[in-house]
Amino acid sequence: MAPRHTVDERIADATLALLRTKGAGAVTVEAVAARSGIAKTTIYRRHRDRRDMLSAALSGIATPEPLAVDAQAPDRLRWLIQEALKAIDDGIGFGGLASLLTDDDPDFTKIFRRILARQRAKLESVIDGARADGSFRADVDGATLIDGIVGAHIAERSRTGRIASGWEQRLFDLFWPIVRAG
Amino acid sequence: MAPRHTVDERIADATLALLRTKGAGAVTVEAVAARSGIAKTTIYRRHRDRRDMLSAALSGIATPEPLAVDAQAPDRLRWLIQEALKAIDDGIGFGGLASLLTDDDPDFTKIFRRILARQRAKLESVIDGARADGSFRADVDGATLIDGIVGAHIAERSRTGRIASGWEQRLFDLFWPIVRAG
Repeated sequence: MAPRHTVDERIADATLALLRTKGAGAVTVEAVAARSGIAKTTIYRRHRDRRDMLSAALSGIATPEPLAVDAQAPDRLRWLIQEALKAIDDGIGFGGLASLLTDDDPDFTKIFRRILARQRAKLESVIDGARADGSFRADVDGATLIDGIVGAHIAERSRTGRIASGWEQRLFDLFWPIVRAG
Repeated sequence: MAPRHTVDERIADATLALLRTKGAGAVTVEAVAARSGIAKTTIYRRHRDRRDMLSAALSGIATPEPLAVDAQAPDRLRWLIQEALKAIDDGIGFGGLASLLTDDDPDFTKIFRRILARQRAKLESVIDGARADGSFRADVDGATLIDGIVGAHIAERSRTGRIASGWEQRLFDLFWPIVRAG
């Protein structure tokens, strides 16, 4: 049997699906109602407006999984790669990213950058911890490293239209010399 | 006195300016005529159609500067960073990149990816040369490295809306351990 989804989940799923495929401009209460099969009146009972609906859908996507406290350096880098890409792959998608790059929907840009800043702070704190305990090189520039990881994914997709298989290992192999201590 | 531009340059400039700011969909012969002040009939005497006009404007942007044959490893990495970013900063801009990510204009996507593949081949051949003569580590993954360089720039812009000063040095410092031999 297919898993059941709550009304809130179905609204969030439709919101993110529209964002990923068509960009932020396509996310309206009307379009989400049509895609999810949920009545506009039901959506408006839960969300004051489109902005609130977008904000609720986005808030869940960038919450990092906990990292085992005793994780070794290679596992920390793998965790960083997975978590850094979540905001795109399980989140705003390339459609949302295109909206950010052109700022075609300033409301969306503002909401998403705020959420992203919180996710970033968590990822950077893991890098800081790894630098402090000697797992990562002490002078790693965490913000630029995360930009490089996320960006390699974006650049490959722009360049080829897809992400070739084995990307997690390719990113690990590329970035490992940057973090490797000693 | 302002430098004089030929008609061809003015058409190319207007084409790229529209692409950078508004994406590929905004590049029409009409819009280029309006922006450049050049008559549509003049544009059509030079370009069969919009596709040909786009292709001509894009063809100039990704031609790498020659690299000194005796360049040392750090200079080769600096050259790679500058040349890899040219296709965006002096080329399609974030508007064009957004169009690639969403494939909102398949003609543009096809033309630009073809041009980009040629530029990429030149950059990768410099990496291959540096690996062969021992300037770079022998196992550097050139394609993923260039994606990481270009991507770090794109990710920073998506995340913050701008590129903070000092980016060339930040990218150099981040990627240097990846290429450093020995």
